[in-house]
Amino acid sequence: MAARALYGQPLTFVTGNMKKLEEVKAILGNSFPIQIINNDLDLPEYQGTPEEVSIKKCKTAASLLRSPVIVEDTCLCFNAFGGLPGPYIKWFLKNLQPEGLAKMLSAWEDKSAYALCTFAFSPGGEHDEVVLFKGRTDGAIVEPRGPRDFGWDPCFQPDGYSQTYAEMDKEVKNSISHRRRALNKLREHFTAPGDASHSDATEPTVYY
Amino acid sequence: MAARALYGQPLTFVTGNMKKLEEVKAILGNSFPIQIINNDLDLPEYQGTPEEVSIKKCKTAASLLRSPVIVEDTCLCFNAFGGLPGPYIKWFLKNLQPEGLAKMLSAWEDKSAYALCTFAFSPGGEHDEVVLFKGRTDGAIVEPRGPRDFGWDPCFQPDGYSQTYAEMDKEVKNSISHRRRALNKLREHFTAPGDASHSDATEPTVYY
Repeated sequence: MAARALYGQPLTFVTGNMKKLEEVKAILGNSFPIQIINNDLDLPEYQGTPEEVSIKKCKTAASLLRSPVIVEDTCLCFNAFGGLPGPYIKWFLKNLQPEGLAKMLSAWEDKSAYALCTFAFSPGGEHDEVVLFKGRTDGAIVEPRGPRDFGWDPCFQPDGYSQTYAEMDKEVKNSISHRRRALNKLREHFTAPGDASHSDATEPTVYY
Repeated sequence: MAARALYGQPLTFVTGNMKKLEEVKAILGNSFPIQIINNDLDLPEYQGTPEEVSIKKCKTAASLLRSPVIVEDTCLCFNAFGGLPGPYIKWFLKNLQPEGLAKMLSAWEDKSAYALCTFAFSPGGEHDEVVLFKGRTDGAIVEPRGPRDFGWDPCFQPDGYSQTYAEMDKEVKNSISHRRRALNKLREHFTAPGDASHSDATEPTVYY
């Protein structure tokens, strides 16, 4: 399912967050060959692994819109917790704040974690395979530092940096972020020549 | 929607767990006026509050089966976490074991928690209101004690008892359990005379 297979149709990003829509368009850039539009359809959030959550959400969106769609899901995964809170991070952030996320790991020596962004794409047909584009940034959970205006950013410090996501210059953060990495995979998929990524396998195609 | 409103139809409990089906039948007892059957339909698990999770799951079951259904959901809620892990407890138990659940609370003084069981009932019609029956047992999260054959029971000690759920005699546990309390509400609903519980409110009817 390379770019030409969309036959000129736009790609609908299901989000009600216009800031996120603009960020995605900016990262994909002017040379991205497909028009991105948005729809603020209220999709159910599912439980499961990050892949299952994304695939189910994307299939639901495709079944409702019957056109090419992408959905996004972000996880914050503690290695000591086997990847949790993962897809449930927003509930933990809401109830515990960034301080509480660091406090949850108090009794573990391993503070390592990763931020995981998954974009899931469906061409929109009932039986179409969902394709996943995953971006991962490794780091550690630390006592919160920096501005509080963006989620768990104050308590996530990427490996190789002495600043948290929240403390970083936005351009630096965006150059290494899990979302940027996932969108790079998505852009490569839709701008690569040919249709090499097509697969008849029952397992989803994952770009990681 | 009292018993007679089911017009002799059986009530389908959506579960593939025959042990749970038998337990539910045993707690409801021989005098329960409606036949309980089961269906091992694989329903998606949703994210949200315990009520939202139950309502969505029940509506999905009703839309697929088009007949009177009940679904069950169990949460383990830490007060220090504002009720989390809540509906996500099974994932945390799987990855962290009962020891890890106690360890998560290491840095908090408040170890209090509650076990919450929710049965959700739909008469099966597309626009039918879902009715919730909730049973709650208060207690605390402790270092695991007792047999390991039933979920998080080793790390939950109900208030007023010196044993964990896992250490308790089964009869004692079943007399105070969150599931028993929820099923008592469900039985009362279906065996109460008249139809006093009917409501035209847009909020779900909750028996708690």
